[in-house]
Amino acid sequence: MAGYSMSRDEYLNRLRRIEGQVRGLQRMVSEDTYCIDILTQVSSVSNALRGVAVGLLDEHVRHCVMDAAAAGDDSKVDEATAAIERLLRS
Amino acid sequence: MAGYSMSRDEYLNRLRRIEGQVRGLQRMVSEDTYCIDILTQVSSVSNALRGVAVGLLDEHVRHCVMDAAAAGDDSKVDEATAAIERLLRS
Amino acid sequence: MAGYSMSRDEYLNRLRRIEGQVRGLQRMVSEDTYCIDILTQVSSVSNALRGVAVGLLDEHVRHCVMDAAAAGDDSKVDEATAAIERLLRS
Amino acid sequence: MAGYSMSRDEYLNRLRRIEGQVRGLQRMVSEDTYCIDILTQVSSVSNALRGVAVGLLDEHVRHCVMDAAAAGDDSKVDEATAAIERLLRS
Repeated sequence: MAGYSMSRDEYLNRLRRIEGQVRGLQRMVSEDTYCIDILTQVSSVSNALRGVAVGLLDEHVRHCVMDAAAAGDDSKVDEATAAIERLLRS
Repeated sequence: MAGYSMSRDEYLNRLRRIEGQVRGLQRMVSEDTYCIDILTQVSSVSNALRGVAVGLLDEHVRHCVMDAAAAGDDSKVDEATAAIERLLRS
Repeated sequence: MAGYSMSRDEYLNRLRRIEGQVRGLQRMVSEDTYCIDILTQVSSVSNALRGVAVGLLDEHVRHCVMDAAAAGDDSKVDEATAAIERLLRS
Repeated sequence: MAGYSMSRDEYLNRLRRIEGQVRGLQRMVSEDTYCIDILTQVSSVSNALRGVAVGLLDEHVRHCVMDAAAAGDDSKVDEATAAIERLLRS
């Protein structure tokens, strides 16, 4: 795996961990955990999601965008940039 | 519920929806869905998480910070600001 | 100055430094500097702006929101939460 | 200009406008403007900076990354992904 890209299993592991963290958030809310502790966990889920997003983007540019480029087609760049913009706003 | 705050049930509903979206992400990765579509879903989970965070912060300032202030204690402000900073970085 | 708050001079110093960085960005664009180096500088301006925002928010909660609260008025909380949400989206 | 990319003049115009906004922030701080109004302006500067960053990234992928790819070199992808990650954290 080059650069920031991950294997499919690595993505799945990370997403399962994120799912567990989100279930942890539900438990914290149910048990009236102190807000600041819940917010710390929310930040940690956001960071974990960003890691997944960065890996997917790397892979997308490395494969889809470049393969299209090799075929003289740069239409994939607009699409990738739009995805980056959505992430930066989210 | 004042302002951005939510009831406990509303937080739980949102977090269950987020959990479902994260499971959806796992399915998308397993089925080799097109990267850009996965990234769109990641942005949507991030947006949903931000909604939960904003609600929790509102509640925290409205209750914990203000109750402490009424008792002449502003130590909760540092803690709230640190949580906001972590969210802005995440 | 308590917590993350700064003196007016400290805000002005930071903002003047940010202004200098933005002028630096103009020079980099004029001189055809390598994109990645310009982007690194853009991230650095964003980080510096976040520092200013966090300081202002801290101060706002510590003074305006709490003074209003002491007078039994929590209408400032909505306004503060809305500002936090705008920052989180920006 | 394809996609999100801009001409050099457009980048310079945007950066000059951002410089003016940052000077406006200094004026607001000097004149003791209400915190929330300063924060609204900070969010607006952040949004404007993001626009510049997205344009530069688009251009970088469209030209540098793709030219390198055409020459069988994907080392530019790591560099681009690292820049995206810095922006997402900033």
